Amino acid sequence: MRILVAGIDGYLGWPLAQSLAARGHHLGGCDNFARRGWVAERGSHSAIPVADMPERLRAFRSRFGHEPEFSEGDLTDYAFAAGCLRSFRPDAIVHLGQMPSAPFSMIDVEHCVYTHTNNLVGTLNLLHALRDHCPEAHLVKLGTMGEYGTPDVDIPEGFFEIKYRGRRDRLPFPRQAGSWYHQTKVHDTHNIMMACRIWGLRSTDVMQGIVFGTRADGLSDDEALRTRFDFDQCFGTVINRFCAMAVIGMPLTPFGSGGQKRGIIPLSDSMQCLAIALENPPPEGEYRVFNQFQEVFEIRELARRVQRVAGDRLGLTVEIEPLENPRTEAEQHHYRPDCDNLKALGYEPTRELDDEIETVLRDLTPFRERIESRRDLLAPDIRWDGSRPAARELVGVVGR
Amino acid sequence: MRILVAGIDGYLGWPLAQSLAARGHHLGGCDNFARRGWVAERGSHSAIPVADMPERLRAFRSRFGHEPEFSEGDLTDYAFAAGCLRSFRPDAIVHLGQMPSAPFSMIDVEHCVYTHTNNLVGTLNLLHALRDHCPEAHLVKLGTMGEYGTPDVDIPEGFFEIKYRGRRDRLPFPRQAGSWYHQTKVHDTHNIMMACRIWGLRSTDVMQGIVFGTRADGLSDDEALRTRFDFDQCFGTVINRFCAMAVIGMPLTPFGSGGQKRGIIPLSDSMQCLAIALENPPPEGEYRVFNQFQEVFEIRELARRVQRVAGDRLGLTVEIEPLENPRTEAEQHHYRPDCDNLKALGYEPTRELDDEIETVLRDLTPFRERIESRRDLLAPDIRWDGSRPAARELVGVVGR
Repeated sequence: MRILVAGIDGYLGWPLAQSLAARGHHLGGCDNFARRGWVAERGSHSAIPVADMPERLRAFRSRFGHEPEFSEGDLTDYAFAAGCLRSFRPDAIVHLGQMPSAPFSMIDVEHCVYTHTNNLVGTLNLLHALRDHCPEAHLVKLGTMGEYGTPDVDIPEGFFEIKYRGRRDRLPFPRQAGSWYHQTKVHDTHNIMMACRIWGLRSTDVMQGIVFGTRADGLSDDEALRTRFDFDQCFGTVINRFCAMAVIGMPLTPFGSGGQKRGIIPLSDSMQCLAIALENPPPEGEYRVFNQFQEVFEIRELARRVQRVAGDRLGLTVEIEPLENPRTEAEQHHYRPDCDNLKALGYEPTRELDDEIETVLRDLTPFRERIESRRDLLAPDIRWDGSRPAARELVGVVGR
Repeated sequence: MRILVAGIDGYLGWPLAQSLAARGHHLGGCDNFARRGWVAERGSHSAIPVADMPERLRAFRSRFGHEPEFSEGDLTDYAFAAGCLRSFRPDAIVHLGQMPSAPFSMIDVEHCVYTHTNNLVGTLNLLHALRDHCPEAHLVKLGTMGEYGTPDVDIPEGFFEIKYRGRRDRLPFPRQAGSWYHQTKVHDTHNIMMACRIWGLRSTDVMQGIVFGTRADGLSDDEALRTRFDFDQCFGTVINRFCAMAVIGMPLTPFGSGGQKRGIIPLSDSMQCLAIALENPPPEGEYRVFNQFQEVFEIRELARRVQRVAGDRLGLTVEIEPLENPRTEAEQHHYRPDCDNLKALGYEPTRELDDEIETVLRDLTPFRERIESRRDLLAPDIRWDGSRPAARELVGVVGR
């Protein structure tokens, strides 16, 4: 298949391109390198150094025999988005070209508005470009389990059959997201659902759990083929952040009671799931939803796992020091999401959590200095209520 | 109360300011006059001539003894939005400052993107400005019954109690909007709901049916106090458009079978409902939804009503010529939305449909020439599937 990865320079995009190339697909990619800019704006950098795109493309070619047809540009520019589709003629597009951080979107009104315009306009442009230039192509959009929030009932995959006042219907499951970033994914969900209905497009919306890890199948040790690893409060996801903290001897900081339950999935299995979605497109006009995660954990259990693996397997002493929750979220709640659609198509978890944590810890160890030098950025000072503790106060909280 | 009407220059905003002034409230207003620009972009104009803002303000003052504290500016500019709130210190804000046309949003990718950024960014700015400058103020947001789409179950007011797999919860009722414009209202719904939850704001989301009419209580005959009346395919709503067609002897054109069911409400009662919402604010942190309509009709029945009133009361002969539906929508469907919340607070319908249609027809009669001169714009050439019939073909269809 000809697959276009929008956001090919990112944490998921770069290993995904390699996983798909290893499966024999022909790759295209586009990026505006915004992720590098956002992380730099926060004063941070990837713990694992990342090569620039020309170097990445050279390494890709020497590994896979061809390099992705790469275009630099911004999906919020319709001419660019349409041009990518017209010239590459994809069978499928994986849309990863969005701002993916909840805290970043909550910084202030400018970041909230930026997240909305960047994420929504990019998708709207892609939908119109698909309609006008390759209506047969399959759009795989990366959503998030966070779109559903934490309702007091089970969470189906996108839709549910209900009986209400004696009548029945299959309806979209209500979304109750908890950050502006998550809201943009909800808005995308509604927009894509409509585009499939009125324009006959086909799309898979992947409600992804929290991804973690440093490795994916098909990724080699070539430095230019490695993917980025963010650990700052905005772009580091929870397990990755705990691992970065453990490596520099900083206490792990679950928020509040740590009783929040989240679905998680290792990077390698996220690649597997996206490949499965791509290789099994829905029929014309269908909008389908896959919940994509391996297991559900409480955040405090994840902290304990990282603590234990760091101690037992690497001899690192790591404390756990819960932090006043900077987010507004339920810390005790029902959580039983379905995850059947991907399994029905062949998804099988391949990694065990503790082993994957160990791999991350070992992969990060050579880069301790790079994390240590940005230690302050591990502490969350972006609060959902809009207030900001003084920087000094925070450093105290995280035990420096 | 001190009430800020965002979009005070519009079809609803201008009479609302007067209705509220007549009820003793102190008014503020802002507008960027975008509505005038959109209608001009479509080559149209208001059937009833509208005065410019300085003239409107003068007439307002001579009628009510004070004029609204008016600021010209764009809510997508945060500094402007925050400045309005800081200087006026409202007890409540009615947010009408949005692009309100489904067909306009469906013209092409530029109009789709514009509708999203204009409508979403304005609301996001207002939410942040409320949080930072007047968190006690009540935000009344104008939504639309179109947010719900046409599910095969009854439509509650925003939320429903459901039982699912043996557990119960009160969840937002799923939204299935049918145009980009309607989607922006759905996105606003989700954003405002979250802002109330995490910031403790208070908001009433008014899911309004299709408004029609030329008059509202408290509106005088002073020309500068009249509100606009659009009839073009983008900014004219269905009953208003039918009345404009009847006045110039053009056949009424329900789309497709005309079996689409919609809730409708006369302009005067829309004003009554908004006043009730404003005068009965919800407690801090509450996001509530009012479905706001008087009666549900099939579109073909509305055409027959206009035809009959035009014939019986004004002696006008009017044909009905259904048009191939330019929209992608269900033409036969279940439709039983609740409308209890406003009634519980005292809303009582004051107008009878036929009488209101007669008033519109009589009010438009002096302006036949202004409608006749834009006759082409009554024919819908904006199709939901993105195609466009040739202009000539269309003129044939509508029987010129």
